Amino acid sequence: MKNRIHFNSSENQEVQKEQLFLAIENERKTIGYYDLPSQNIDEILDYSKTFDSSIENIVVLGIGGSSLGAKAIYEFLKPVKAPSRKLFFFESTDPLNIMEILSQIELSKSHILVISKSGSTVETISIFKYLYAQESNASNYTFITDKDSDLDKFANKIGSKIFYLPSNVGGRFSVLSVVGLLPLSLCCVDIKELLNGANKVRESFFNDGYLKESLLNKAIFYAKYHTTYNINCLFAYSETLRYFVEWYVQLWGESLGKKQCSSAFHVGVTPIGLIGPKDQHSFLQLIVEGTRDKSVTFIKVADFENELTVPDIVLPYLESLDTLNGIPFHELITMQSDSVIEALIEQKDIPLDEIIIERVDEESIGQLIYYYELLTSLVGELINVNTYNQPGVESGKIILKEKLKNRR
Amino acid sequence: MKNRIHFNSSENQEVQKEQLFLAIENERKTIGYYDLPSQNIDEILDYSKTFDSSIENIVVLGIGGSSLGAKAIYEFLKPVKAPSRKLFFFESTDPLNIMEILSQIELSKSHILVISKSGSTVETISIFKYLYAQESNASNYTFITDKDSDLDKFANKIGSKIFYLPSNVGGRFSVLSVVGLLPLSLCCVDIKELLNGANKVRESFFNDGYLKESLLNKAIFYAKYHTTYNINCLFAYSETLRYFVEWYVQLWGESLGKKQCSSAFHVGVTPIGLIGPKDQHSFLQLIVEGTRDKSVTFIKVADFENELTVPDIVLPYLESLDTLNGIPFHELITMQSDSVIEALIEQKDIPLDEIIIERVDEESIGQLIYYYELLTSLVGELINVNTYNQPGVESGKIILKEKLKNRR
Repeated sequence: MKNRIHFNSSENQEVQKEQLFLAIENERKTIGYYDLPSQNIDEILDYSKTFDSSIENIVVLGIGGSSLGAKAIYEFLKPVKAPSRKLFFFESTDPLNIMEILSQIELSKSHILVISKSGSTVETISIFKYLYAQESNASNYTFITDKDSDLDKFANKIGSKIFYLPSNVGGRFSVLSVVGLLPLSLCCVDIKELLNGANKVRESFFNDGYLKESLLNKAIFYAKYHTTYNINCLFAYSETLRYFVEWYVQLWGESLGKKQCSSAFHVGVTPIGLIGPKDQHSFLQLIVEGTRDKSVTFIKVADFENELTVPDIVLPYLESLDTLNGIPFHELITMQSDSVIEALIEQKDIPLDEIIIERVDEESIGQLIYYYELLTSLVGELINVNTYNQPGVESGKIILKEKLKNRR
Repeated sequence: MKNRIHFNSSENQEVQKEQLFLAIENERKTIGYYDLPSQNIDEILDYSKTFDSSIENIVVLGIGGSSLGAKAIYEFLKPVKAPSRKLFFFESTDPLNIMEILSQIELSKSHILVISKSGSTVETISIFKYLYAQESNASNYTFITDKDSDLDKFANKIGSKIFYLPSNVGGRFSVLSVVGLLPLSLCCVDIKELLNGANKVRESFFNDGYLKESLLNKAIFYAKYHTTYNINCLFAYSETLRYFVEWYVQLWGESLGKKQCSSAFHVGVTPIGLIGPKDQHSFLQLIVEGTRDKSVTFIKVADFENELTVPDIVLPYLESLDTLNGIPFHELITMQSDSVIEALIEQKDIPLDEIIIERVDEESIGQLIYYYELLTSLVGELINVNTYNQPGVESGKIILKEKLKNRR
């Protein structure tokens, strides 16, 4: 992957860069996600091999950090990989949604992954109860949870297979742990290549590679101007990245939207996920002419490895569009993103940059994921928040618990 | 539908309200969407009746305002209506996406709606050329475009059926015109009920009904504080509203993100679409603890008309969650949204309100759509922008045209 930055991000900040890098190197000693690229994945691969073709569907019961990452990668690769098994996600208590997913899967041909770090996620356990009442064969379930959670104890009791989350890896940083790797491996995604991609970014950053400078510069710019540019848009030019941008929204929003450690002031940068060219016909107008409160990062795919082409036919009265004739769609979509980028550069006051990934494959998405995890950690360090907790969602959970108790 | 407002939105502003209402009444004389609820739809209904069961798929070639509205309504109703035909949308030049959709439809069993107001939308025409090269039977296509556009002339030449957009209805306000009604009618959505829902909101607003006050008050609050609360979140508690929030993002962002008429200052309020309870595990932390730059509107469904229930089973070690036993999921999801709303009210400084729709049906979504169209017009009037144009996207189009010309 490449990163081209179109704003001045490197004005005399050698001291900040040095300090920031040291802080992250220090954080790496206790925060677990940094070194997931070199974890041992033998147990996951061996376990995946025990599944035969009688299992056609992998069903994930999980929400937030327990589903968004695997979904992002699965949906990214789906158009090019024709995965061996279908992956389904129960992520809502909306009864209509539950019914709709149920209508698409045959439970006897499905294996169910119950994923909850705490082991007490309301959405996950309520749907688990619903499925378990119909299918209580322990071998149809695999559990991923924290060691010694109530869910761990339950799974042990019924004798299902259990995987543990590394204790120092938070939910939204867990996609490259067993949380993402197991469901993907069961659908024959090459998880080694995924980690390989992530590892390239890790090495590049921590060992003075080509991404170190640009990541540090970008983070410092975003942090320095976080009250001016309080919105960060990720504008990805491929439908395959539709769920990747949702994963990014969680990562960025939940990590950086915090009370500042030093001041308890409310801070944060709001993430927006956009897909091109579709959102040229939606959100783009707001970027071009709206309030100057947005930075924008474009993601482009260098090689779609696909030669679908606009046919060379002339249609009466539509001759003005004959310039489209014979153009491969992959070239057209890249011209579209480049045109929008040029138009925004002309505005002069919108900080923007481009990330170019090689192709639609495991390595590329592994790179993107690790790149954004790093960027989030860097910005979090600079705006002085705890990047890894989420205390703001607790009070809603407590109120719900009360409501549930009072209902009985 | 109901609207409960939890912030003080009515401080001494009778003059503003009066003025604003008059301005909208005046605008109604020239802007076409206001009176779509009472349009004559006989031609659409009659044409729909000419389709028999040999047509299994309706395929929309359209992007932005030509697709988002119909998609929002179709996906909203799908879980409860089991539509008679499947609706597909080509909305991207991403070759992988085009291939994926092609693999799902049999062209011989499909009817294709080519929707482009200008008649020269690059995405739409390039994909149309691709399909037309394979299937050039004019009766397989219906065109929706402006009268006298190049696409109109082409469709006339080959002898396909053509519908015209009312000339004073812009793309993103066109869902209740033939643009949305025809594809929906062909999938047996009750478009009369849809318009009936929209009409209820229209009557309520223009004839001193219950929504007039709250719409005017909300719009004045949003406009007055648009630099403080520069982000507006729509947090809908049902997966069925997933595409409705995308429609809202286009409507709000493209209408309000503008240079101000009087000052040429960049203004606008950034729209964010959220789905609960999923986004409690993603974006919520940022709302609760992040910068105070967001207003939030919750949408709840009063009656899901579905009795799916968490079974009354006790699982060892998971007894603390037995409070979930026997609860219908529709009740659970409502308790979840109410818990989050209460938690946010406790924060005291986040402007929030709730919209409650009756059920998942045509009337309710018709109401929601018209409500948001009105709210957009009201805010646009107050922040002094041209709500109905989108000049900011032109320069990218011109650059693309150049690139296409130079390629040959």
